[in-house]
Amino acid sequence: MAHRTNYTMLFDFYELSMANGYFQTPLKDRITYFDVFFRRVPDGGGFAIAAGLEQVIEYIRDLNFTEEDITYLRTKNCFNEEFLEYLRTFKFTGDIWAVPEGTPIFPGEPILTVRAPAVQAQFIETYVLMELNHQSLIATKASRIVRAAEGRPVAEFGSRRAQGASGAILGARASYIAGCAGTACVQADRDYGVPATGTMAHSWVQMFPDEYTAFKTYCELYPNNATLLVDTYNVLRSGVPNAIKVFKEVLLPKGITKCGIRIDSGDLAYLSRKARKMLDEAGLTQCKIVASNALDEYLIRDLLVQGAKLDSFGVGERMITAKSDPVFGCVYKLAAIEDEDGTIIPKIKVSENAAKITTPHFKKVYRLYDNESGEAFADVMCLHDETIDESKPIELFDPENTWKKKYFSNFTARSILEPIFAHGELVYKVPNIEEVRSYCADQMSHLWEEVKRFENPHRYYVDLSPKLWKIKNDMLEEMRNI
Amino acid sequence: MAHRTNYTMLFDFYELSMANGYFQTPLKDRITYFDVFFRRVPDGGGFAIAAGLEQVIEYIRDLNFTEEDITYLRTKNCFNEEFLEYLRTFKFTGDIWAVPEGTPIFPGEPILTVRAPAVQAQFIETYVLMELNHQSLIATKASRIVRAAEGRPVAEFGSRRAQGASGAILGARASYIAGCAGTACVQADRDYGVPATGTMAHSWVQMFPDEYTAFKTYCELYPNNATLLVDTYNVLRSGVPNAIKVFKEVLLPKGITKCGIRIDSGDLAYLSRKARKMLDEAGLTQCKIVASNALDEYLIRDLLVQGAKLDSFGVGERMITAKSDPVFGCVYKLAAIEDEDGTIIPKIKVSENAAKITTPHFKKVYRLYDNESGEAFADVMCLHDETIDESKPIELFDPENTWKKKYFSNFTARSILEPIFAHGELVYKVPNIEEVRSYCADQMSHLWEEVKRFENPHRYYVDLSPKLWKIKNDMLEEMRNI
Repeated sequence: MAHRTNYTMLFDFYELSMANGYFQTPLKDRITYFDVFFRRVPDGGGFAIAAGLEQVIEYIRDLNFTEEDITYLRTKNCFNEEFLEYLRTFKFTGDIWAVPEGTPIFPGEPILTVRAPAVQAQFIETYVLMELNHQSLIATKASRIVRAAEGRPVAEFGSRRAQGASGAILGARASYIAGCAGTACVQADRDYGVPATGTMAHSWVQMFPDEYTAFKTYCELYPNNATLLVDTYNVLRSGVPNAIKVFKEVLLPKGITKCGIRIDSGDLAYLSRKARKMLDEAGLTQCKIVASNALDEYLIRDLLVQGAKLDSFGVGERMITAKSDPVFGCVYKLAAIEDEDGTIIPKIKVSENAAKITTPHFKKVYRLYDNESGEAFADVMCLHDETIDESKPIELFDPENTWKKKYFSNFTARSILEPIFAHGELVYKVPNIEEVRSYCADQMSHLWEEVKRFENPHRYYVDLSPKLWKIKNDMLEEMRNI
Repeated sequence: MAHRTNYTMLFDFYELSMANGYFQTPLKDRITYFDVFFRRVPDGGGFAIAAGLEQVIEYIRDLNFTEEDITYLRTKNCFNEEFLEYLRTFKFTGDIWAVPEGTPIFPGEPILTVRAPAVQAQFIETYVLMELNHQSLIATKASRIVRAAEGRPVAEFGSRRAQGASGAILGARASYIAGCAGTACVQADRDYGVPATGTMAHSWVQMFPDEYTAFKTYCELYPNNATLLVDTYNVLRSGVPNAIKVFKEVLLPKGITKCGIRIDSGDLAYLSRKARKMLDEAGLTQCKIVASNALDEYLIRDLLVQGAKLDSFGVGERMITAKSDPVFGCVYKLAAIEDEDGTIIPKIKVSENAAKITTPHFKKVYRLYDNESGEAFADVMCLHDETIDESKPIELFDPENTWKKKYFSNFTARSILEPIFAHGELVYKVPNIEEVRSYCADQMSHLWEEVKRFENPHRYYVDLSPKLWKIKNDMLEEMRNI
C-alpha cells in the first residue's frame, strides 16, 4: 500500500472562509450538490480518460485536521472558535458518485457528483479537482501517445522533468492506466504497482575507458536485460558495432537472443533503419530498437509513417507534463441545494460565454451502446430519478441546436456514475491498477475510431433528456429577465 | 517545519541498475563530478530563477532505504545481495555546491555540482533534477508574471489545476520566492510560510437567495477582509451595485474603507474601468479591484497597456503549470572522474548538436558585476582552482565565436556556487523563505533591463576562462579523431 501524505490542508483558503461562513448561518447543514466536469478536451482530442479517483477516495477517507492544523488556522484570526472545534472531528458524511478510473469522458457531463452539507462539499473542492485534473490530464495524453505507437510498448520516462514528486509518481500511474507498458519511476512501482524498468544512461558509457568495455561490463552484469545506449559517441560508427560485438561475445554463447539497443539522439528514422540492417546482418534479428528523445504522439506517428524500425518508445517530458496542453480544466460547480424539507432546488451559473453555462440539478449520465456494433454512440444527462427505456427508440437532440435531432433504437443504456461514498462510508470496491488498465482498454474498444482521431475528431454526442433540457432552459429564461 | 514524505525511492530504475553495476566493479569508489545545468530559458526569456535547493537538501539529508524498500528491490531479481546490504545504510558522503535559491541563472553554467563516489552521485540524479526543474520552472514563470504586473500584487491561485499535490504546494513556494505576494494554497502557508489568503467562490453567491444577501452576510462575517466576487450574475448591472450597497451599509458605519471586488470573467479592461468609476462615484476610492481568469504575463501587460483599472491579480493555471512552456530542462552530466591517485580527469559528452556538447571538468562560476552601475555583465566558468584577478581588465570571448572579444575593467567577481554539503555534512545555512525572496529581488535588481525583456532579450554572456576553453576544445578535437 502506498505511503500516503495527509492532504487535508491542501485546499484554497477561500474554501475554509466560505465553510466557516456557512457554519455561522442556517446554510450550515444545507445539503448541496456539486458536479465536477470539464469543458474542453486537451490537444483538440475527441475524449479524455478519467483518472485519479483512487487518490480522491484516500483523501476523503483520511480527512483529518491535527491539533497543529487547528492551532495554525487559529492564527489567521478569522475563523469562528466553534468552527475550529468542529474541524477537530471533521469527517465527510455525504455521498459521492463518480465514473470509474479509465472511463472515456466527454465535455460537459459530470464525472463526479458530491451530495453533502455545504461546509463539507465546499471544503473538498480544491483537492478533488487537483487530483482528477492532474491524473486525467496525463492519462489522456498517454492514451494519445500509446495509440500513436500502434501496439508497440511505450514506457514512461519523465520523472526528472515532472512538476513535482506527485507529478512524477501519480503521472506514471495515470499513464499506465491509459496503456503505457511501464515506467522508469521506482516509487510508482513500489507504491502503485506500475512496472518499473531501466538500463543505462550516457554516464555509464562515459565512466569506462571505452564504449566496448562499458557495454561488455553491462552485458555481463545483466545478460537478461541488456538494452545498450548506443549514441554516446556515434550511433552507426561506434555504438551499434560495439553493441553487436558484445552481444555476440557475451549473450549468444549463453543462448540469449533477447537484447536491445536504445537511440536517444539524432534522426531516429534514419538511424533506426540503418541500425536494424546492421543488427539483422549480424544475425541479431531479435534485438529490439528502443527510441527516446522528446517524443510525443506526433513525432511517433511521423517516425512510423517514415518507416522507422522502432520496437518500443521511451517517452519523457512531453507525456509527464502533457507539454502541448498541460492543463486539464475540470471545474466544481454548484448544481442544486435542498431546501429545509429536502426538496431539490436546481442551481445554474450563467455566463456571457455560452460554453460556461452549467447544467443544473442532481443528475445521472447514461452511456448508450449500439447493440449491433457494441459501440458507444451518445451520453445522455438526465435527472437523477429518470430512467431510459431501452425498448423504445430514443430521440437525441443537440442541446444548443435543438433542431438537430436523431433517433436511435436497439441500444443498451448504462449509467456511468457509480456510487463511491454513501453517508460518508466507502461503498465502492476500489479496483487494482491492472483491473483499471484492462477496463480502460475495454472501454476504449467501444469508442468509434472517428472519436479517437488526434485532430478534428467526430464530436461525440452529450445530450440532455427533454426533462432536464426544459428545466435548464426555463432557468436561463428566468435569469435573462433579472 | 514541513511534513516531509521520504522520496528515497523516487528515482529512475536505471540509476540503481547503474549503481549496482558500479558497485560490482572497481568504479564503485571512484570519485565522480556531475553538473546540473540547463540549455534553454523557457518562454524565450533572458534568464531563469533557481529554486528547489531546500527540498534537494532535505532529500539528501533524509536518504534512507527501509526494510520494505530492500525487500521490494530484491523482488526485481537483478540486484547484487551485497549491494542491497550496502543500501541498508546508504548515506550521501560527498560534496555538493549550488547556487542559492532565488539566483538568476543562465544556460550552460552549472547551477549545482556533485562530487561523490559513482554509486551515490548516480543515484541522486532523478530527484535532484526533478526538484530543481520543477521549482525553477515555476519561479521563472512567476518572475515574468510579477514583472508584468508592475508592482501590483500577484497572488498564486492555481492549486486545483496543478500537476499533483507537490506541484500545488511547492509551486506556490517557488512563485513566492520569485515575487508573488501570496497563495491560495493553505498547505503552502502552513508548511513553507507562503502567506495564504482567499475570500469567496461563485458558489457562495449562489447559495443565498440573492447576491445582495450573499455579499451582506460575507461582509458581516469578514468586515476586515471583504473582497466580493461580482461576476456571478452581471458585473455592472448587479455585482458592483450590490457590492457598493453592502460596503456602505456594513463597512462604512464601522469606519472600514479597505475593501475589494474581484472580477473573474468578461472583458477585464472594460469592466474594471467602468467598475472603478462606479466605486469612485460612490466614494469608495479605497476599494481595490482584483482580476482573475486565465491571466499570464502577456494578458496582464496588455490589460495595463489598455488602461485597465486593476490593483492586483490572481493567477492560476498559467503560472502553476507554466502553461506556455511547461518543462524546465536541467540535465545532470558527468563532468569529470578522479583516477586512483585523485587526479581529476575531465569528461565530455559530444553530440551532433553543438548546443548539447557539455563543458568538462570540475568548475567554478564567477559572476562579474560592474563596479559603477552594480549590474552583472557576465558569468565566467573556469577551473575549480582558478581565480579571477579583479585588478586587471578581463578579456571575455564568446566560446562559440572566439573572435567576438570584449574587455572589461573595474568589476567585482563573485563565485556563485556555494558549498552545500562537504563530506556528506550540511555546511550551508538554509535561509528562510523571506530571506530567499529578498535575495531574489536583490539579485534581480542587478540584472540589465535588456536581459529581462520577455521576448528577444539581450543574451547575457556566459563565457569560459581561456584555460577551460582550451581543455574543452582539445577534448573535442581529440574526439573528432576517433
